[in-house]
Amino acid sequence: MSTDGPRLSFWFEFASTYSYLAAARMGAAAHAAGIAIDWRPFLLGPIFADQGMTDSPFNLFAAKGAYMWRDMARLAGDLGLPFQRPSQFPRNGLLAARVATAGLGEAWAPGFVVAVYRANFGEDKDIADPALLAALVTAAGGDGTAALAAAATPAVKDRLRASTQAAKALGIFGAPSFTTPDGELFWGNDRLEQAFAWARRGY
Amino acid sequence: MSTDGPRLSFWFEFASTYSYLAAARMGAAAHAAGIAIDWRPFLLGPIFADQGMTDSPFNLFAAKGAYMWRDMARLAGDLGLPFQRPSQFPRNGLLAARVATAGLGEAWAPGFVVAVYRANFGEDKDIADPALLAALVTAAGGDGTAALAAAATPAVKDRLRASTQAAKALGIFGAPSFTTPDGELFWGNDRLEQAFAWARRGY
Repeated sequence: MSTDGPRLSFWFEFASTYSYLAAARMGAAAHAAGIAIDWRPFLLGPIFADQGMTDSPFNLFAAKGAYMWRDMARLAGDLGLPFQRPSQFPRNGLLAARVATAGLGEAWAPGFVVAVYRANFGEDKDIADPALLAALVTAAGGDGTAALAAAATPAVKDRLRASTQAAKALGIFGAPSFTTPDGELFWGNDRLEQAFAWARRGY
Repeated sequence: MSTDGPRLSFWFEFASTYSYLAAARMGAAAHAAGIAIDWRPFLLGPIFADQGMTDSPFNLFAAKGAYMWRDMARLAGDLGLPFQRPSQFPRNGLLAARVATAGLGEAWAPGFVVAVYRANFGEDKDIADPALLAALVTAAGGDGTAALAAAATPAVKDRLRASTQAAKALGIFGAPSFTTPDGELFWGNDRLEQAFAWARRGY
């Protein structure tokens, strides 16, 4: 794919349920649409905190939460993805986001990202566990030990912090979100096709 | 259409931007899908108040609001619907909801509902204005004076209040929402096709 072809930034947060759906279908969907994807891990916690929320809106608003779990079960079923409501929600995705940040540009990164979501929302595993994350990096074709070591460096921590600030500057308030080089923002797994269509304009 | 064919309840609130999109395309879309629609006006205000919100979430959360207006402009453009950000948001839709309730089952009701949304979000008109509402009923083929008189009766006010309670009992927390006779809830204009597909199961 040409580097100056259509591009889309895919902003995801590991605690976000709907990001699982977007991540799981992103590889095949982007390939089919001919779009290059910049995978952008970021943290929603600081953005929610700026809005005065100290927990997931799905926990703060019971009816919205009940709906989300049912909606996720239906959508995951339609996509043939394993899904169960995790015993803990939201799980702490900070370390996973740092590992994903350490892997940006590496061939193993997209596979790792999808595997983390599957572990959390398909297998009810604790994605804050360093041993699990290292194993998922290795399973995706990377070096788990090296990736975990990189995730602990100030450079990677700073890069993730900068990504969260960049997300906020782009107007992002939830996940998944998709942004185009010309500044359009699309929010939600159900906006992926619309984001693709926008990214392809002019090519 | 048989009365025991697939049915869907369409829950809408006149202050809701995305309900405009769903209402505007409902007639043709439901006809094409072979689904009978129960139009269910209700009020989101009391439901938001139960969640501790005294204003639209799009006003309470600036980034979410900014996104919504841009998203609406894009989606309305795709659907060929007139759209402009109203000078007042949210507008008071109580009287319009009472008029729509008075018209339930009448042939003019769906056309009236769509016209109210167009007035608010396409033409920046005050949908709390009784004269405007009466004119829209008449333009949709009803008797505007009679409809406004009916809207002021205790029976209609009670019926709308009961609808809002029924919406809450169904787990509805936003608009538009769609419910099926077997108890499924779908939230959002972008879930309409999924709701249609669910409603058609078994027929």
